[in-house]
Amino acid sequence: MERTDSPAGVSNTDVLARLAEVLEQRRDADPETSYVARLYARGLDVMLKKVGEEATETVLAAKGGSRDEIIHEMADLWFHTLVVLTYRGIRPEEVLAELGGRFGVSGLEEKAARRCGGRHPARG
Amino acid sequence: MERTDSPAGVSNTDVLARLAEVLEQRRDADPETSYVARLYARGLDVMLKKVGEEATETVLAAKGGSRDEIIHEMADLWFHTLVVLTYRGIRPEEVLAELGGRFGVSGLEEKAARRCGGRHPARG
Amino acid sequence: MERTDSPAGVSNTDVLARLAEVLEQRRDADPETSYVARLYARGLDVMLKKVGEEATETVLAAKGGSRDEIIHEMADLWFHTLVVLTYRGIRPEEVLAELGGRFGVSGLEEKAARRCGGRHPARG
Amino acid sequence: MERTDSPAGVSNTDVLARLAEVLEQRRDADPETSYVARLYARGLDVMLKKVGEEATETVLAAKGGSRDEIIHEMADLWFHTLVVLTYRGIRPEEVLAELGGRFGVSGLEEKAARRCGGRHPARG
Repeated sequence: MERTDSPAGVSNTDVLARLAEVLEQRRDADPETSYVARLYARGLDVMLKKVGEEATETVLAAKGGSRDEIIHEMADLWFHTLVVLTYRGIRPEEVLAELGGRFGVSGLEEKAARRCGGRHPARG
Repeated sequence: MERTDSPAGVSNTDVLARLAEVLEQRRDADPETSYVARLYARGLDVMLKKVGEEATETVLAAKGGSRDEIIHEMADLWFHTLVVLTYRGIRPEEVLAELGGRFGVSGLEEKAARRCGGRHPARG
Repeated sequence: MERTDSPAGVSNTDVLARLAEVLEQRRDADPETSYVARLYARGLDVMLKKVGEEATETVLAAKGGSRDEIIHEMADLWFHTLVVLTYRGIRPEEVLAELGGRFGVSGLEEKAARRCGGRHPARG
Repeated sequence: MERTDSPAGVSNTDVLARLAEVLEQRRDADPETSYVARLYARGLDVMLKKVGEEATETVLAAKGGSRDEIIHEMADLWFHTLVVLTYRGIRPEEVLAELGGRFGVSGLEEKAARRCGGRHPARG
């Protein structure tokens, strides 16, 4: 999996992977100066509260906001979900693999449809 | 930006980019058979309701669930945020570029910290 | 300070108190025929998911909906919070007493302001 | 059917009704000193964001918190829903009337069950 770190050649995968790495590094930084370290220091409930908060902000932006506002709030939401993932020792690649698995193997559409409103299907 | 579509070489970028493409294709599919088409047919509020619902499920999974449950619920949340993005004509790459911009240029950490609890900073 | 608020003489207190009683009674009803019994049978996470879902619907209604839609969605939200309270053995009167205590004793406004953005204040 | 629920004689109805009155009075107070005036000054989106935030906190408290924490977070959630109602010119009594109407007239249980997962039923 090639990776180019130059501005023009940074793939989106790198963004998520590198972001996860930054989050890992900041875990033990000084909570006074690092927002991420502060989230870690305050614990899981505070991170999860941020996820709920940013989800609501995303909903509000999508409902009445501009294109830029939606992008901005969505980035905030994704960012805080990444913080939660890292806190629980999960790499973003694992979530993407789950999405890709639904999509690539038996079809994301079908799996998503099947479980809508019902129990989660067993997954291999 | 190379892209390899073989199972072993599918990058995570491809997952998001291809997923967005699938969502685009399914917009006009039959709502009877396509979950995505059904979401589009029911409109933005239904999609946003799903985002709120899946955010809560992610919170619950992160709070007490297994690793697999967290991955699963997070995939559901990201999936429905992608549906909203596509509905509003925004590519996932744009959100990742926003995240990467915060991260790569002047530092994600700093920008995130600066805007926490305050107004959103102007962004170039 | 008696007050009867509705034409029929049923005060709003009765609505919440009687609703809580109904919820108690339906706990052990048949999940096939009772929505409340079904919520109890499916457990706390399902109730909490409903709270998250109805909160999002309330947000959407308040944002763009009619007066009737807001009232309707708010009733749904309050209803599901009552289900959660009953499940955890808490009477709605206890939540109202907390609200009244903040309001009547040292002032709701001040306490709410003090804890905003900070830690929850110790309460007697 | 008068009912006085608390030792001091202040019924719970009074809590909601008086709280709504306080919120009305604080609308035009100084945002520097009044939390409610500050919410009004910052606008609907900020209030709705608080609803989403407090809903998440209620979910977290109900999931793992103590009895007191649940009561406290639920009071916060109800408080902010009252702020939204007042902002939109709706009295809490109207929401309670909706709940009471479902409950007293044709049965809350049945109506709730009927609309679950489907379209909202027409209401008279």
